Amino acid sequence: MDRRSFLKTTALGGSAAAATTLAAPAYAQGKRTLTLVTTWGRGLAGVHDSAQYCADAITAATDGALTIDLKAAGELVGAFEVFDAVTSGQADMYHGADYYFTGQHPAYQFFTAAPFGMTAQEIVNWYYHGGGLGFHDELGQIFGLKSFLAGNTGAQSGGWFRKEINGPEDFNGLKFRMPGMGGQALGKLGASVQNLPGAEVYQALSSGAIDGTEWIGPWADEKAGFQEITKFYYTAGFHEPGAALSLATNRDVFESLSPAHQAIIEQVAAASHQWTLALFLSNNSAALGRLRAGGVKTLQFPDSVWDAFGKASAETLDQYMSDELFAKIRESVNTSMRSSSAWLALSDGAYTAQRDRVLS
Amino acid sequence: MDRRSFLKTTALGGSAAAATTLAAPAYAQGKRTLTLVTTWGRGLAGVHDSAQYCADAITAATDGALTIDLKAAGELVGAFEVFDAVTSGQADMYHGADYYFTGQHPAYQFFTAAPFGMTAQEIVNWYYHGGGLGFHDELGQIFGLKSFLAGNTGAQSGGWFRKEINGPEDFNGLKFRMPGMGGQALGKLGASVQNLPGAEVYQALSSGAIDGTEWIGPWADEKAGFQEITKFYYTAGFHEPGAALSLATNRDVFESLSPAHQAIIEQVAAASHQWTLALFLSNNSAALGRLRAGGVKTLQFPDSVWDAFGKASAETLDQYMSDELFAKIRESVNTSMRSSSAWLALSDGAYTAQRDRVLS
Repeated sequence: MDRRSFLKTTALGGSAAAATTLAAPAYAQGKRTLTLVTTWGRGLAGVHDSAQYCADAITAATDGALTIDLKAAGELVGAFEVFDAVTSGQADMYHGADYYFTGQHPAYQFFTAAPFGMTAQEIVNWYYHGGGLGFHDELGQIFGLKSFLAGNTGAQSGGWFRKEINGPEDFNGLKFRMPGMGGQALGKLGASVQNLPGAEVYQALSSGAIDGTEWIGPWADEKAGFQEITKFYYTAGFHEPGAALSLATNRDVFESLSPAHQAIIEQVAAASHQWTLALFLSNNSAALGRLRAGGVKTLQFPDSVWDAFGKASAETLDQYMSDELFAKIRESVNTSMRSSSAWLALSDGAYTAQRDRVLS
Repeated sequence: MDRRSFLKTTALGGSAAAATTLAAPAYAQGKRTLTLVTTWGRGLAGVHDSAQYCADAITAATDGALTIDLKAAGELVGAFEVFDAVTSGQADMYHGADYYFTGQHPAYQFFTAAPFGMTAQEIVNWYYHGGGLGFHDELGQIFGLKSFLAGNTGAQSGGWFRKEINGPEDFNGLKFRMPGMGGQALGKLGASVQNLPGAEVYQALSSGAIDGTEWIGPWADEKAGFQEITKFYYTAGFHEPGAALSLATNRDVFESLSPAHQAIIEQVAAASHQWTLALFLSNNSAALGRLRAGGVKTLQFPDSVWDAFGKASAETLDQYMSDELFAKIRESVNTSMRSSSAWLALSDGAYTAQRDRVLS
């Protein structure tokens, strides 16, 4: 679908229109409280920390002129309601993973992670120097948002399984939890894909309602406790090779802020992206060590499975190509990714392979 | 040498002492101009852009209450004089590569890049979540600076050679430009190492005064024009696997700022680190394509050379271990690096290898 028909046919068109009619808010006594809703339960490892970083840093850098009041998922609205809450003006900002909002527009997938797509570093390259920031803003104009990348989990793990995966046929009939377009791709391999909220995954895996699940990475997965149920853990996955998080402000609210405060939100979001990614990467190795010590077997999918992941991912993205903006963004992403990845393999990749060989 | 004898025996001890006697400056009419000196010639690809990003973003985010006046190398002081200029109060801030100041303290090497050390992502992991930021501040306290990482070039290329390198013996007697501890390590392989300022390298290579040089990476190297002289280009190098840049403020000046303005400097520096790294990585692949089209042959050093690089790098760092702070920081770096790299290899590394295989 193209953008025009998309706006006509979705409820969000209404939200976007409503947002433009909000009165521009004013600063009271030079101070103003902005409500930040999130897609994360309070305290959720890494992702809630990222939202809190944004809230604290914006409050500090504005000397409280903008005081950010963080409401975790369920405290004001539910996790998946934050988009509507901000576009409608019920809340001022959200921190979340934009691919939860592919129902609003499929191109939001690219601002978290597309299956078989960019790593965290490649997303940053594209976002700041390959057109990504501009496309994020183009999507935001449709819905009445001003969005910036503001966090990243790094490459997400392939996930937890009850038995080893020896070929793509092992996914046939497998009941597996995986959200978004990654999950749709897995469905093409015959998996019965479920999109459960985080809070329900442990119970579903434990009861046998699902055969396996992906979550984030060793640090967050260990906290979720999946190692108590299954022992086969695939460290690399295809579905979210660098899952970015976004900080989105109601566009009328954003435009009512001083240029300096707008600049602060943009700088803090960027700093938070880097800080959050480093937080996950710093904690994952230690957690992996503990998981292994507890009997978890770490594995990599065989080539035949990666071949199938690649084919299914491309087919999944192809389904959305009739949307003009999706197609334009996908092309931009692919151009940047091909270019970035070629150099990274020859420099960082070649270096770390040699360093790790020599030091081991 | 330990920190105490270091302070006694260097001129910089004097500068540090002088810095503490500066009067705390005041804001005039709520506006204040801070002079930012840099180690970069005006317009130098990527690195000057990084300094300009910091200057512009701090000015914007403070609505000009802090107006940053950027003086490139030579405009107020020379490139290598910025450290003394800021510690003495002649300038307020510098943007530069801290390993230029290993004469002041050898541990500054770790805040740019140590040979056989951390990649850009590994440095960030260490800096924000492994103790690096605290150590940077500990060094700053010695000299009267408040420093933050504020840029990164990514992994630097192995460099330009007149002939192929087939073993470590090919470095014996080779006249090669490489600064810092990387250069010292190369000296252990028998190379005659030169540390020429950037502006002199082209002429030296062209005249045969040197046999080869490293610089930064394809984008910056192409602008320097080395492809006009030699055609053998090693894309991966051991000497600066992720060269960070710093933004350092005179500590008395920093402490005279409001907490909000201090927070803005810290957030902008972090955002600049990410933005600058992405700038280099986004431009390198395209530049490499142009270099290859112009007849440049891209190569990787053989394993025997990497083995020699690893041994020489360790020996070089060992020479500074009598300095207590250097030893403490080196241990912290190695702990974080081992942990980070283990996970990155199993996730990002395994993913990109498979993706690039499938998509190729």
